[in-house]
Amino acid sequence: MPSPRKPNPARRNERSRRAVLDAARDLVSELGYPKVTIEAIAARAGVGKQTIYRWWPSKGAVIFDSFLALSEGSEGIRLPDTGDLEADLKTVMRATVAEFADPVFEAPVRALNMEILGDSTLAALYHEKVAGPVDEAKKERLRNAQQAGQLAADADLDLLLEVLYAPLYQRWLLRSGPLTPEYADALVEITLRAFGHRPAGPGPS
Amino acid sequence: MPSPRKPNPARRNERSRRAVLDAARDLVSELGYPKVTIEAIAARAGVGKQTIYRWWPSKGAVIFDSFLALSEGSEGIRLPDTGDLEADLKTVMRATVAEFADPVFEAPVRALNMEILGDSTLAALYHEKVAGPVDEAKKERLRNAQQAGQLAADADLDLLLEVLYAPLYQRWLLRSGPLTPEYADALVEITLRAFGHRPAGPGPS
Repeated sequence: MPSPRKPNPARRNERSRRAVLDAARDLVSELGYPKVTIEAIAARAGVGKQTIYRWWPSKGAVIFDSFLALSEGSEGIRLPDTGDLEADLKTVMRATVAEFADPVFEAPVRALNMEILGDSTLAALYHEKVAGPVDEAKKERLRNAQQAGQLAADADLDLLLEVLYAPLYQRWLLRSGPLTPEYADALVEITLRAFGHRPAGPGPS
Repeated sequence: MPSPRKPNPARRNERSRRAVLDAARDLVSELGYPKVTIEAIAARAGVGKQTIYRWWPSKGAVIFDSFLALSEGSEGIRLPDTGDLEADLKTVMRATVAEFADPVFEAPVRALNMEILGDSTLAALYHEKVAGPVDEAKKERLRNAQQAGQLAADADLDLLLEVLYAPLYQRWLLRSGPLTPEYADALVEITLRAFGHRPAGPGPS
């Protein structure tokens, strides 16, 4: 049995890596991307600059990784599937709306969005690493609903996801309206109506 | 009858003002907001710096005005009203999609959006001067459709406009898909289905 006192380099490395990523994300939220420096990230994380340069080649790389870490494990995500599509989507959308209404979450994500909108290379990387896998998980849930006859068989699932999420994204980006559970529910109801939703009947007992 | 050769200070002023606004917008598209200077705007417009400072207090003010000029006259805008809501919205959305697919239009609008997303004061001003009046014109057309029984009487028109426009806005901002006439039509059809559209029957001859 390993002694808990024995130094564990792997664990210490992981702790330092986490501290660097947290510091990078916090500083981007506080100062904006252009003003963040490797020095400031190292100081905030309590590590030396050389530690950062051992793992990342540039400021851009460490900051981008700090945002990827937010969605770590997203490759394995699955949407809830209780058999009730409307209820499941409302669960997901209420959670999403709550995240975007939370200053701790939304500030770094806003900073990331500003970078992405101005940099099409970063946009492509973000799409490949984050948005793409998440969208695939959502479509998996929607395909189940199609197979169960709860959604039009010919529904364009990419368009469906745009109609469901883009109003929230725009309202958040432009701060053009409140982000509430009622808003989440309204988007789900409108989207399902548009794409031929038929609720599941009572199943065999 | 006034001689066409007689100098007309008002007309010359208007010409200079237009040249300054065009130069400001072009330079923001080419260089990005942070790199644009009053000197560069003056040089491009062929006027002296003092001419710019006579009319605008700051670089921010002249650039903001340059974008407002894009939508000058928008207070008097009206949407087409042929009595056929679906056809009218498709006309408008196809034109909007074409604008956002046009590099000459989209580059300065993207620059403006970047400024707005990072500056909530500018966002409020933009909403008051541009987005608000344009949305009001759109809602006027939708209210006519409600009165004609072509749209659910209790449809939430703000939500309807979000569902209609936000997918286009997101697709354009994130460059996440093609901007085509077919896309414009699909957004209109999906939105109308979601909000209880009933096409007008043949009217009395």
